[in-house]
Amino acid sequence: IKNTHTHQKKTKKKQKLKDFEMENGNSSSGDNKATPKPIRCKAAVCRKAGEPLVMEEIMVAPPQPYEVRIRVICTALCHSDVTFWKLQVPPACFPRILGHESIGVVESVGENVTQVVEGDTVLPTFIADCGECVDCKSHKSNLCSKFPFKVSPWMPRYENSSRFTDLNGETIFHFLNVSSFSEYTVLDVANVVKIDSSIPPSRACLLSCGVSTGVGAALETAKVEQGSTVVIFGLGSIGLAVAEGARLCGASRIIGVDINPAKFQVAQKFGVTEFVNSMTCGNKRVSEVINEMTGGGADYCFECVGISALVQEAYACCRQGWGKTITLGVDKPGSQICLDSFDVLHHGKTLVGSLFGGLKAKTHIPVLLKRYLSNELELDKFVTHEMKFEDINDAFQLLIEGKCIRCVLWMG
Amino acid sequence: IKNTHTHQKKTKKKQKLKDFEMENGNSSSGDNKATPKPIRCKAAVCRKAGEPLVMEEIMVAPPQPYEVRIRVICTALCHSDVTFWKLQVPPACFPRILGHESIGVVESVGENVTQVVEGDTVLPTFIADCGECVDCKSHKSNLCSKFPFKVSPWMPRYENSSRFTDLNGETIFHFLNVSSFSEYTVLDVANVVKIDSSIPPSRACLLSCGVSTGVGAALETAKVEQGSTVVIFGLGSIGLAVAEGARLCGASRIIGVDINPAKFQVAQKFGVTEFVNSMTCGNKRVSEVINEMTGGGADYCFECVGISALVQEAYACCRQGWGKTITLGVDKPGSQICLDSFDVLHHGKTLVGSLFGGLKAKTHIPVLLKRYLSNELELDKFVTHEMKFEDINDAFQLLIEGKCIRCVLWMG
Repeated sequence: IKNTHTHQKKTKKKQKLKDFEMENGNSSSGDNKATPKPIRCKAAVCRKAGEPLVMEEIMVAPPQPYEVRIRVICTALCHSDVTFWKLQVPPACFPRILGHESIGVVESVGENVTQVVEGDTVLPTFIADCGECVDCKSHKSNLCSKFPFKVSPWMPRYENSSRFTDLNGETIFHFLNVSSFSEYTVLDVANVVKIDSSIPPSRACLLSCGVSTGVGAALETAKVEQGSTVVIFGLGSIGLAVAEGARLCGASRIIGVDINPAKFQVAQKFGVTEFVNSMTCGNKRVSEVINEMTGGGADYCFECVGISALVQEAYACCRQGWGKTITLGVDKPGSQICLDSFDVLHHGKTLVGSLFGGLKAKTHIPVLLKRYLSNELELDKFVTHEMKFEDINDAFQLLIEGKCIRCVLWMG
Repeated sequence: IKNTHTHQKKTKKKQKLKDFEMENGNSSSGDNKATPKPIRCKAAVCRKAGEPLVMEEIMVAPPQPYEVRIRVICTALCHSDVTFWKLQVPPACFPRILGHESIGVVESVGENVTQVVEGDTVLPTFIADCGECVDCKSHKSNLCSKFPFKVSPWMPRYENSSRFTDLNGETIFHFLNVSSFSEYTVLDVANVVKIDSSIPPSRACLLSCGVSTGVGAALETAKVEQGSTVVIFGLGSIGLAVAEGARLCGASRIIGVDINPAKFQVAQKFGVTEFVNSMTCGNKRVSEVINEMTGGGADYCFECVGISALVQEAYACCRQGWGKTITLGVDKPGSQICLDSFDVLHHGKTLVGSLFGGLKAKTHIPVLLKRYLSNELELDKFVTHEMKFEDINDAFQLLIEGKCIRCVLWMG
């Protein structure tokens, strides 16, 4: 995550509402459809780090070329929202509209948008899939090189450009290319996936980030095989989604590692078969305990906490010859993963990172939704709470206190 | 490489030659063949670190059950021989018979040996392939878990057991399960690969270690694809063998990195297309230079020097999304490979070590030899010198001075 809003100050100048209308009037859309107008709607704005979100009316500008404006149906909360809500230093910036796990209906499209039309149901994704760059065209990568992942406050295609303003005309920043804590939001066409509208929105929205990341890491990055032994460090939502993915792949042992033994009871519903409390391993390292349990290490180890030292533990309890360590957790900037060079050379283990589970948004999300509809992928168990959008601050508290897996907020 | 000869001192007690005969007489071999006797032959013994090898007569005991005694036809020199010849601290131990790249003919077999018979042509390999353990049975691993790789001075199957003694009855230590600097040597059946006897011995022997390691790393560990861009750090024998493997895989760009520009001329014969002198990159890092040359990084980067900081450079010039860094070089014990945790998570690159090129000795060596016979794999260009076994100390000097790629010594 790089700080990419160095020009933030420049653009904090006020924009009047009439600017929108002018901009709108200048639109050179050639079709006969009504030119999109700014929309006034409700959004939960993060005005200051760590303070309750402010439910206020904002203006959402029309989509620019290659952009899509959507009406959000519902949005879920993810830990990255909490991280950036709390964060006081760059890449934090305020006021901002957080939220990046959601589902919506296309309200209007900008010029040159051909992939979706008004009325389509779409999933926004923080990771882009432009379909044109060498990465998007390759089956080997899910990391769009035209719009690389970064925590930018702007629209991906236009420098220093936001579609949100408050009623004083002040710019409100975007978040992770989505900003779903708003009744309406604007996305780049590279960040929306058209999906079947018959899928329950409160389930589909989960594939916008967390569940896709975990399930994808097992299916796509690791390619877990039938009968494998899997270890998951951290039984939060991402870890549970890895377990769900490993279960789908037919893993026979799924060992969960956490410091909170209460998590095991929940994790069992997600296919976790065994539990190691890393706080009660005595004078043994977790990796020693797991190497004993597995007779020499696991086939696949997933680090879902975001502590580099745990990546080293995960690597240490990977099986020689083919063990694979997959990192999903986000550690502090500058933190290092250090491995013994002899171990790397002599044990034939693999280390690889997984962003969005290695999934190509437009290719894989529809596949996962099909697996949900055919009762293979169990999304229902992830949704522990459903609330009204207005109660978003209560939902934040639930997440912070670890009382929910996924809380879905309905825009109403 | 672990020090596994802690009991070295215990066994330095003298053994009389008659011990061999008694041992021999006790053999319970049930067939009608003559029971193997000790053999007196010439060997180049390393009696002291860094001192010229001593060409002397030694006794080679008969093979024990699951062991094979071979007459060495020819042996090549590898850098690991020089490393252990120089090494003054454990796992060094003397007197020792070095050498591990060779070819031989089975002279006799111990009990329970079914894979080869007297007269078979075999390649000894430092890496075992027992064919029975879960690793050897799996297509995913080449790291035998029954006889894991270690720099042991003993026979793999029998604790503190050597087959070599000098004429005073003193134990001489083994090296890398092979010890080919001797007219006769004893190997575990897990460490011999039966091959077609029609293949020129001076070419076949190269597949015993170095060429297999480099070619295998490209073919098997990396699975280099047609049209790929490959970077090789270090243009020694292993690096050149990686280039040969990458060429076989159809790589379109093979960029060699070395501090010696003279190596590029040689490397071109091995398919290296471009050269970067890491000493003359000015204030740029090698990875910056390569990222510019390749427009964002290479598909595959191989570290063949054995410097952990170079592994980090290799990782830095791997392409996002699918770039793979393969380590082949051996750094000092305890050295660490440190990667930025954000880079690992966000760039989807893979780090993996490759021992013996990821090849399963008994499966893959015959395949490589077939590719040599069909003029695909070019082994001839690796052999820059051929000498008599007696001139082994001259051959060591050639290797130390960097004047040869592979020098083959004929036992005569």
